[in-house]
Amino acid sequence: MSQVKKDWAALAERFHREYGGKIEISLKAPITTLDDFSIWYTPGVAEPSKRIYQGGEDLSFDYTWRWNAAAVISDGSRVLGLGDIGPAAGLPVMEGKAMLFKYLGGVDAFPLVIREKDPDKFIYIVKSLEPSFGAINLEDIASPKCFYILEKLQQMLDIFVWHDDQQGTSLVVMAGLLNALKLTGRKIENTRFVIFGTGAANISNYKYLKAFGARPDNIVAIDINGVLHRERPDLEQMKKENPWEYQIAVETNPENIKEIPKAFEGADVVIAFSKPGPGVIKKEWISRMNKDPIVIAGANPVPEIWPWEAKEAGAKIVATGRADFPNQINNSLGFPAVFRGVLTVRARKMTDELLLAAATAIAKYTEETGMHEERIIGTMEETELYVREAIAVAEKAMELGLARRKLSRSELEKEIRELVERPKKMTKVLLDSGLIKPMDQQ
Amino acid sequence: MSQVKKDWAALAERFHREYGGKIEISLKAPITTLDDFSIWYTPGVAEPSKRIYQGGEDLSFDYTWRWNAAAVISDGSRVLGLGDIGPAAGLPVMEGKAMLFKYLGGVDAFPLVIREKDPDKFIYIVKSLEPSFGAINLEDIASPKCFYILEKLQQMLDIFVWHDDQQGTSLVVMAGLLNALKLTGRKIENTRFVIFGTGAANISNYKYLKAFGARPDNIVAIDINGVLHRERPDLEQMKKENPWEYQIAVETNPENIKEIPKAFEGADVVIAFSKPGPGVIKKEWISRMNKDPIVIAGANPVPEIWPWEAKEAGAKIVATGRADFPNQINNSLGFPAVFRGVLTVRARKMTDELLLAAATAIAKYTEETGMHEERIIGTMEETELYVREAIAVAEKAMELGLARRKLSRSELEKEIRELVERPKKMTKVLLDSGLIKPMDQQ
Repeated sequence: MSQVKKDWAALAERFHREYGGKIEISLKAPITTLDDFSIWYTPGVAEPSKRIYQGGEDLSFDYTWRWNAAAVISDGSRVLGLGDIGPAAGLPVMEGKAMLFKYLGGVDAFPLVIREKDPDKFIYIVKSLEPSFGAINLEDIASPKCFYILEKLQQMLDIFVWHDDQQGTSLVVMAGLLNALKLTGRKIENTRFVIFGTGAANISNYKYLKAFGARPDNIVAIDINGVLHRERPDLEQMKKENPWEYQIAVETNPENIKEIPKAFEGADVVIAFSKPGPGVIKKEWISRMNKDPIVIAGANPVPEIWPWEAKEAGAKIVATGRADFPNQINNSLGFPAVFRGVLTVRARKMTDELLLAAATAIAKYTEETGMHEERIIGTMEETELYVREAIAVAEKAMELGLARRKLSRSELEKEIRELVERPKKMTKVLLDSGLIKPMDQQ
Repeated sequence: MSQVKKDWAALAERFHREYGGKIEISLKAPITTLDDFSIWYTPGVAEPSKRIYQGGEDLSFDYTWRWNAAAVISDGSRVLGLGDIGPAAGLPVMEGKAMLFKYLGGVDAFPLVIREKDPDKFIYIVKSLEPSFGAINLEDIASPKCFYILEKLQQMLDIFVWHDDQQGTSLVVMAGLLNALKLTGRKIENTRFVIFGTGAANISNYKYLKAFGARPDNIVAIDINGVLHRERPDLEQMKKENPWEYQIAVETNPENIKEIPKAFEGADVVIAFSKPGPGVIKKEWISRMNKDPIVIAGANPVPEIWPWEAKEAGAKIVATGRADFPNQINNSLGFPAVFRGVLTVRARKMTDELLLAAATAIAKYTEETGMHEERIIGTMEETELYVREAIAVAEKAMELGLARRKLSRSELEKEIRELVERPKKMTKVLLDSGLIKPMDQQ
């Protein structure tokens, strides 16, 4: 596979070991004399504690790092494509996420893996940890329990809760889709979709497609057993075990299509998050789609169909999860900025409107900075994208009355820009000083 | 009170707010190009995860920050002298502790406050978080449930668990005591003790006094209701509600002394951790003690008796919790180095021997660098103290078969010294570069 330039697995194995992980705690406030301990610890620290006790828990956002602290929480039940490998084995991924949170969004995220498989007990544990955090990012939790866990925690907690395998993926899919629709002259309400795969990502994508105006009548979904239709023998079981998928089965596919090739016929967009390809989506299926179809093939590490195959079959726009092809649909364009935005205004809740605001901001930024078929969405290198996205989320949270803080647009922009730029400067300063050693990848 | 030079409360209130807390996450491994994400996150990160899954949980210490990650955990049920102010109000203290852990011990500690008062549920929550950490520091949990919680967690977890209000305090008390006994020509097995107060600190001190060779026959303990003796009307209730205190009541005071002044008569050492003074311990009581008595008055912010009063009453050596008097008995001399030591060798358990090794190392270091009546224990400024203490703990853990790693003395010393020095360098570099702003305390 010529596209893969380096052996990432071998490099990752080596460097994770050599660096002993990838994040650490550092001091944000100075200690220069022993006297300073009397401010940051006893006896001085009693005063902020008293103020919070007397003035209410919200003051903990003023006096501690809580305003910027997010937890990256997993039970390790569905880590990347590796399945249920458990919490300890999930830790490298959660720590990596924390690294991205900081580097891209200026968010102080720390990895927490929890040894508990029961959803209600897991919810109870996370709830008990609430006073430690300003926001929570759930990660790599098996479907369908992830839906239940997220819904419950969003109801119960008074801070922002997000499941990146759901919202994070949907956010970037929607951002890319908005521009792909513009480029091919489509309106979402008239667009016909194939949803390929019904895991966490696509069940979430279905929800947000509707939120953006897509009509269930124009959608056909496909799971591991084939097309979702009203005569599926597993429908009753699905209703019990995965009501989220069941809802899709009963709301979509009015023609009761039963064959996969038929599902693709006349479709405008396929959104695939299923299993690693190639060959999971056939060229022949793509060729049955409408003119200038849009193919989002999200499986990692190999998309459901290679981009060149999709193109050969007539696809106008192809997006994948990979950095080495155009149009990378990459969660890292989403979560760091979303959390930056909600943490800056101390949002109490996650709502769909915040996701729509973020997706619209990404799409608009990309459009303004040069949108074309091979650039429906910006890249991780574009710091400005993060700033714009974070501001959009923060403003929407304030508008909806979800924010604990009110800031003007210019205050917001100043704070957000500083926080997004800070970790890059910090990393450079630490590299220059020799406190972080450079990698030797030769 | 002329001893207090600054209004720490006001400074703390101001600076906690201005800095928005005092720790943050920073990158330990470099990101210089987008390619680096493929090593630290997907696709590369799957490899360390696979290795841990296949090779066992201990490999998570190799591939993540876990080897150096400690949690500072509290339920906020007894924060400083403020009582049960709850988890959110306890967060500034836990964050401060995390700051000290890093600055003094090079330990990546992060604050976790848990909203759960039931001891068994609290234990369950902490246990479920085990795969995230290399060690756990419990903090500011009400007595007597703190004893039960600690004992259970030490049994259940396969990592080092410590309660700083117990072990942390006992460690520095024992270190100071060892030297005070040397200076006054006493042997611990013939020394008579008054234990003043029976909270977490003194119940722990009693345990470690015995471990160091003190005889229960030579000890009299005093709680809020007076001297512990065999005819106390609350003995049966104590047995049920606080078996740890009950044990002291039945093991000590063979003469069945009932009056406080009488308890002091002929005693060599008083160890007080009760309530803020002055005047909690009377001069008259001190004057009844043996010649050249030792007074450890640990209450904060004001000791049970002012040092000059104790001296006037005949005390030879006085130690308090305060930095503005000689002989500060300060937990910060203990926990950072102990955790440095156990994390470096990845200890599986906490045992009394580790505490004895640490106390002996502190005492010996102090003796070698100039011990006298006003210096029975070193200070936070002495980096070498931390290095020596950490090495002693690490070596003892290896000797006892508690360590996951085996290192030679020179390897140990090199690793520990680097880790202890690193945060000081880092703070300086960040201050010099303007990324941490200096405090303006004028």
